[in-house]
Amino acid sequence: MRDRVAVVLLSGGLDSATVLAMALAEGFACHAMSFDYGQRHRHELAAAARVASSLGAARHVVVPLDLRAFGGSALTADSAVPKGRDETAMAADGIPATYVPARNLVFLSLAAGYAEVIGARDLFLGVNAVDYSGYPDCRPAFIESMERTINLATKAGVEAAERGEEWFRVVAPIIGMTKGEIIGAGLRLGVNYGLTHSCYDPVVRDGETRACGSCDSCILRRKGFKAADVKDPTLYA
Amino acid sequence: MRDRVAVVLLSGGLDSATVLAMALAEGFACHAMSFDYGQRHRHELAAAARVASSLGAARHVVVPLDLRAFGGSALTADSAVPKGRDETAMAADGIPATYVPARNLVFLSLAAGYAEVIGARDLFLGVNAVDYSGYPDCRPAFIESMERTINLATKAGVEAAERGEEWFRVVAPIIGMTKGEIIGAGLRLGVNYGLTHSCYDPVVRDGETRACGSCDSCILRRKGFKAADVKDPTLYA
Repeated sequence: MRDRVAVVLLSGGLDSATVLAMALAEGFACHAMSFDYGQRHRHELAAAARVASSLGAARHVVVPLDLRAFGGSALTADSAVPKGRDETAMAADGIPATYVPARNLVFLSLAAGYAEVIGARDLFLGVNAVDYSGYPDCRPAFIESMERTINLATKAGVEAAERGEEWFRVVAPIIGMTKGEIIGAGLRLGVNYGLTHSCYDPVVRDGETRACGSCDSCILRRKGFKAADVKDPTLYA
Repeated sequence: MRDRVAVVLLSGGLDSATVLAMALAEGFACHAMSFDYGQRHRHELAAAARVASSLGAARHVVVPLDLRAFGGSALTADSAVPKGRDETAMAADGIPATYVPARNLVFLSLAAGYAEVIGARDLFLGVNAVDYSGYPDCRPAFIESMERTINLATKAGVEAAERGEEWFRVVAPIIGMTKGEIIGAGLRLGVNYGLTHSCYDPVVRDGETRACGSCDSCILRRKGFKAADVKDPTLYA
């Protein structure tokens, strides 16, 4: 099994850390892939490097993605992060302000190109449609359509189809799990969630990155640790 | 009509220049989009800028795409360019050495993100499946699947679907045309093909970029001008 190689999208957050642990537990040699696309994600990139190293990824690739040509309002926007919303409020507001245009489409496209280069067939990502389904590119319909498109877009995919095989697989193992279930599964696989970073609006104090505790991501994370009935290792501001 | 905005992928080659002219003729304000992903394409980027300016694109956006993290063999590989092949030889060899992993998947994903930012719905690209159908990501099945995936991946696409509308459209107007037909159509729309660059292996001599004349792209281009019965404006080595 160990000779099978997978590409795992790794943001540095709780979800993708769990998915990396799952892919490793399935026996894949994992190439973790992160994207450097703006300032808000600096803390996440540092967390991604810690997670990849601690779990034993074969490689951690950081792809620079400079989208300043898109204009100020895109992936790196400094729009206000909503604070203190409960899940009903999050759901009622529909697709959130923190939505990034076509993010998982772009990330999976680049992951597919990389996978074809290194001979990987499995692309893992930590999208989740249960706790917070506001993002369109976290839904099963997108994942299925993306898998089909990747197989049509690539040499490996088209050549396999001629043999009656499906080559690339987009694997979203936590898409149907609650945050509590995700944390429980990760802990059983040895994930150190103290290394992960979820906050959309972190504060650096005394040289340490602290989570704000009140953005959507912090609220879902806190609730997840409570639901899993384990101590939350996050450092809050 | 003029207030409608489109994103047009522009490589600097003959095909995408023609597609830009077509989109402009349809009344779109066109944001031309090019990608800077490696040395071989420097001449193409200069050509893309000339073409965008001469045809009257509203804007020309160049997105840096640094894929060195992928390893040496990907988009920027310096593998040998096949020379002197006729079309039978090109077709017999299947997917060519100049194939770039998941290229149009990556480019269209980024174009979709940009389109969502600027409020464009139409993504034009110059893929062609007639003269040379070796590339999987130039085939109609890929284009259709990609369009569907973009509409599932984006806020604008999902919100339009809820109203029963299809938002993004991937438009490949020359996908079924021969090179001769493409050149004929472009000349009628005022394309100056002397500004375009097609060669995979150009030579710079006396400060001027000259096409090799014998790579697949040069061979198809030369044949196109012959078929269109017009003078080939290309400077050959």
